[in-house]
Amino acid sequence: MRVLGIDPGLRNMGWGVIAVDGSRLRHVANGVIQTDGGDLGTRLSRLYRGLCAVIAAHAPDAAAVEQTFVNKDAVGTLKLGQARGIALLAPAEAGLAIGEYAPNAVKKTVVGVGHAGKEQVQHMVKVQLPGVIFDSADAADALAIAICHARHLQTRTLRIARTA
Amino acid sequence: MRVLGIDPGLRNMGWGVIAVDGSRLRHVANGVIQTDGGDLGTRLSRLYRGLCAVIAAHAPDAAAVEQTFVNKDAVGTLKLGQARGIALLAPAEAGLAIGEYAPNAVKKTVVGVGHAGKEQVQHMVKVQLPGVIFDSADAADALAIAICHARHLQTRTLRIARTA
Repeated sequence: MRVLGIDPGLRNMGWGVIAVDGSRLRHVANGVIQTDGGDLGTRLSRLYRGLCAVIAAHAPDAAAVEQTFVNKDAVGTLKLGQARGIALLAPAEAGLAIGEYAPNAVKKTVVGVGHAGKEQVQHMVKVQLPGVIFDSADAADALAIAICHARHLQTRTLRIARTA
Repeated sequence: MRVLGIDPGLRNMGWGVIAVDGSRLRHVANGVIQTDGGDLGTRLSRLYRGLCAVIAAHAPDAAAVEQTFVNKDAVGTLKLGQARGIALLAPAEAGLAIGEYAPNAVKKTVVGVGHAGKEQVQHMVKVQLPGVIFDSADAADALAIAICHARHLQTRTLRIARTA
């Protein structure tokens, strides 16, 4: 089966697809959908179409999205929320079940500790996906989210945070 | 021309369509798309399809979305942001230009003062859209947003807040 991981962001929407074969993981593809300028509707539309294209091209069977909170300010949180709505809509419209994981849960699964640094996460993504090349931190994060979901699916302890 | 107003919310997404004929406004339709339960992806998908159905049924030429901030907590703001992303995506995907207005701007345009109460707003919506019937505050708010956008289009002082 294939798992799509998404690291939501309005400016940089990271994505990564991995293949799961028993306990073995394999890198399929990764990238970032960028929206630098233009009005908000157009940017969200670009993110949505980008994710739909990724899903169409790589046919994942499941998806996982990071459950991020921005605590610094309401404007930043609202902006992230808007991008996150798109990150959830695209797989939902494709009929995929979506896992949601807090950043610490991703780090704990991928690295072993909840407070790992970015470099540690990227190192362990490379170890678990031999030969992977990613050119951005957002794509690496998305692959880490996909790995996290795959490991949870494997151990049958799928935790989907249902937001009421 | 027809204007679609949207009052974004995850649980209750209010919408209202009005027709603009010179300085005369006419009510076309209003309602609320509700998502009470289920996982977040499914709820956002329901909101998206609901808005797409409204756009297909009433063929608006322009759209306007309230620019709301929830200051009480990050969780509420993120939730609103996710719904707001959908509220912007649906008209953007339909090729509509989207106006964004802060709640006070809507009240100032519809009632005349920026700090009007809900009852005042609903009263002035009824005055400006003779014969209108709405059964929820969210639909009334959405009609107020549509009226606000129509008035701004009329006076050629369209203010679209471009979020960087």
